[in-house]
Amino acid sequence: MDDLIAELAGVLGEANVLVSEQDQAPFITDWLGKYRGAARAVVRPGSTADVAAVMRICARHKAPVVPQGGNTSMSGGATPDASGQAIILSLTRLNSIRNIDAVGNTITVDAGVVLAKVQQAAGAAGRFFPLSLGAEGSCTIGGNLAANAGGVAVLRYGTMRELTLGLEVVLADGRVWDGLTALRKDNTGYALRDLFIGSEGTLGVITGAVLKLFARPHARASAFVAVRDAAAALALLATVRDRCGDRLTAFEFMTGECLALILRHIGDARLPLAATPPAAVLIELSDQDDEPELRERLEAALAEGIEAGLVLDAAIAQDGTQAKAFWRIREGVSEALVREGKAAKHDVSMPVSAMAEFVAVADAAVRRVAPGVRPIVFGHLGDGNLHYNLLPAEGQDPAAFAAIAPELTRIVHDEIGRRRGSISAEHGIGQLRVDEMPLRKAPLELELMHQLKHLLDPAGLLNPGKLMPAATKN
Amino acid sequence: MDDLIAELAGVLGEANVLVSEQDQAPFITDWLGKYRGAARAVVRPGSTADVAAVMRICARHKAPVVPQGGNTSMSGGATPDASGQAIILSLTRLNSIRNIDAVGNTITVDAGVVLAKVQQAAGAAGRFFPLSLGAEGSCTIGGNLAANAGGVAVLRYGTMRELTLGLEVVLADGRVWDGLTALRKDNTGYALRDLFIGSEGTLGVITGAVLKLFARPHARASAFVAVRDAAAALALLATVRDRCGDRLTAFEFMTGECLALILRHIGDARLPLAATPPAAVLIELSDQDDEPELRERLEAALAEGIEAGLVLDAAIAQDGTQAKAFWRIREGVSEALVREGKAAKHDVSMPVSAMAEFVAVADAAVRRVAPGVRPIVFGHLGDGNLHYNLLPAEGQDPAAFAAIAPELTRIVHDEIGRRRGSISAEHGIGQLRVDEMPLRKAPLELELMHQLKHLLDPAGLLNPGKLMPAATKN
Repeated sequence: MDDLIAELAGVLGEANVLVSEQDQAPFITDWLGKYRGAARAVVRPGSTADVAAVMRICARHKAPVVPQGGNTSMSGGATPDASGQAIILSLTRLNSIRNIDAVGNTITVDAGVVLAKVQQAAGAAGRFFPLSLGAEGSCTIGGNLAANAGGVAVLRYGTMRELTLGLEVVLADGRVWDGLTALRKDNTGYALRDLFIGSEGTLGVITGAVLKLFARPHARASAFVAVRDAAAALALLATVRDRCGDRLTAFEFMTGECLALILRHIGDARLPLAATPPAAVLIELSDQDDEPELRERLEAALAEGIEAGLVLDAAIAQDGTQAKAFWRIREGVSEALVREGKAAKHDVSMPVSAMAEFVAVADAAVRRVAPGVRPIVFGHLGDGNLHYNLLPAEGQDPAAFAAIAPELTRIVHDEIGRRRGSISAEHGIGQLRVDEMPLRKAPLELELMHQLKHLLDPAGLLNPGKLMPAATKN
Repeated sequence: MDDLIAELAGVLGEANVLVSEQDQAPFITDWLGKYRGAARAVVRPGSTADVAAVMRICARHKAPVVPQGGNTSMSGGATPDASGQAIILSLTRLNSIRNIDAVGNTITVDAGVVLAKVQQAAGAAGRFFPLSLGAEGSCTIGGNLAANAGGVAVLRYGTMRELTLGLEVVLADGRVWDGLTALRKDNTGYALRDLFIGSEGTLGVITGAVLKLFARPHARASAFVAVRDAAAALALLATVRDRCGDRLTAFEFMTGECLALILRHIGDARLPLAATPPAAVLIELSDQDDEPELRERLEAALAEGIEAGLVLDAAIAQDGTQAKAFWRIREGVSEALVREGKAAKHDVSMPVSAMAEFVAVADAAVRRVAPGVRPIVFGHLGDGNLHYNLLPAEGQDPAAFAAIAPELTRIVHDEIGRRRGSISAEHGIGQLRVDEMPLRKAPLELELMHQLKHLLDPAGLLNPGKLMPAATKN
């Protein structure tokens, strides 16, 4: 056993320092099976003090540290490189809900608490925590914070950044910044909190957070709506927003190709419409109570959409079961994609008003390079966030498609750049997009990022190879 | 004319470099008349490029720069010191609305645009910009961003930080960071935007911003409600929130002493209640439409409050005129305070659940030191933000009160510290609270702030003496 491992075991106990291949297996590969790394050890601290001790030891030994929560990153953000030098710092033993304040509408949690547990604890206190995403049963709050998670309720409640009041962070040198305040307003200095949120574990290790809670909505209304295209969907979004205001909780867009794919692969998905439309949106409203009023309001908005020629057909859920069936379609997209083959995936955002035009231009541009390529486009239209995926032409050799996939990504991201969009709306940069950063960010912005990184992690030990491209300057 | 002035005049024209005492007068004193400084020149750039040129010149001459918008800071944040070395950089000529995107719900503006002009432009486009505060007719967006302004709609829409998507910032060395994106979701790096927001002009000069717009609420319902005390008000807040959700737009608290003061000094203020109550709240709901439904909902919440013994008496506005009269009371507080005498003012925040207990404890604590002292307490209860003001005892010599005021402030802020609150919820640190920073911030947080300041403004030229206390380390 080397010195580093011995010191870590001295603090955490040998049971919490995993060195065997078998013990490490779940930690060194990302859940998508896309990245495979190696670790010198996986450590499992049980407290903030433990994390601080680990960081002090690793700093002394100059050992790189890869923080990991539920290991559900979409971009390889929590998987070490192949060098075998890294210590994986698993936060999942930090899993206490420290406090719920139902009057102040806040919850204070350890970073390793699973998202679903926070949702449940809020519900048990008669409150609501709105962050909701596919991995909610296994992702952790710390990971949600590191990645500034989004999901299906951003339109109304914002991303993880907007849902957070305070943070506790262990710095690269093991010092603990206690920013665990529960304040809605505090103008006494620089926004350290926001520096750590979304930094993908490259500036510090988040160990605790104070999150906002909300009044619990007791009424929901959902509609599955056929539209002509993204432009019609955008116009309908404006109508629904004007009529429904903050009640609008989700506005999810899917193209007809997307729907066809779902129907092909997801056995229990049923379209609530007479025919597969050119495109569709799933709309959800929520409110404190009064479901009939909510449904009427949604009907009125859709009637206005029909009148304006925006809505081709629509189904309104009559109960929770029907609403669930609508969501089953939306949630089946990722699964259907996997079953169809290996897609070139893009998680892009842009000004909401640019989306319809972007889809048309990007579709044409990728088809010029790859005739027959199948764009499978869906996403959070109200947030300007599209999951723009490309499947090979029917019958195309997967290897041939894989060979042109980087070129297709360049085309898609060039179009995003022209609209001042983002090449990662919610999935983060991680390893997946790190090499693109110098192409997509202005040199001044990269320089400022490098300086911030150097300030907080001068030895470059925190999650190396993620988010921050290797410095090219100096 | 010295070299610096000549260079500035060469870029901006002599008409935009003010050196005479008379021309400088409106810029060197804060609007409250509390701080009076001196300037080497007041410069009035007309574009971002102008600002960049000014910063390059000032950096070369090592001249301190004090950015200034509408000069409405509550904490002397835009007033230079008395040395006469500073260049005041007035942003008011940068006053264009660059773009309104009614589909994407964004507005892009120059930093010098007056807040009311943004509100009006949003309204003209059928949209709504929610930031609203007393100085809205003269404060600028750049100042709102530098101070992370709050106001009366934070409860629903958040502070300026939450209302902002993108920024354009001129750095201390004159380079321009173009972060003027209109993205709702963008996880591609560190939150530079949030570093500049709330930094009071000490890290860079904000020259432009992309702000969020919202659906325009067409219905309002307002109530003026008598309650026993802050504890009852807090319980009522929970009830109203549960019943009304996001419709709750304002929940403003005033003590009975506060009301009595208003009635004494504000001739046109009329209480809509039979008698002056021990305390009161002004509640406002807003929604897309359907004013009768909104009023009914408010009535139901208040009925529940009466049932629970929380509400002593209540008046619901029957029309806009009555609602305006309710707000006249709330808005009269500051004016009434000024007329009554010189108060020791505190703009504090804390966890919402701690407020009632704080008021009781702080009242008792200040009375021990200053018998007869009159706490005049009001504020944004839903945000945990109180304006906790202390007037001298009736008939007390103002000089004697001024002598103990710092001790009273220490007592109030100590109580805030015990509840992990903030000594500046929305007014900023500026000059007013800068000396308290070392007492109220953890050493590690101050150290990180100093490092960030040094990174972005190594020569310490940006708004010296504001927000950042002089470094005591190294």
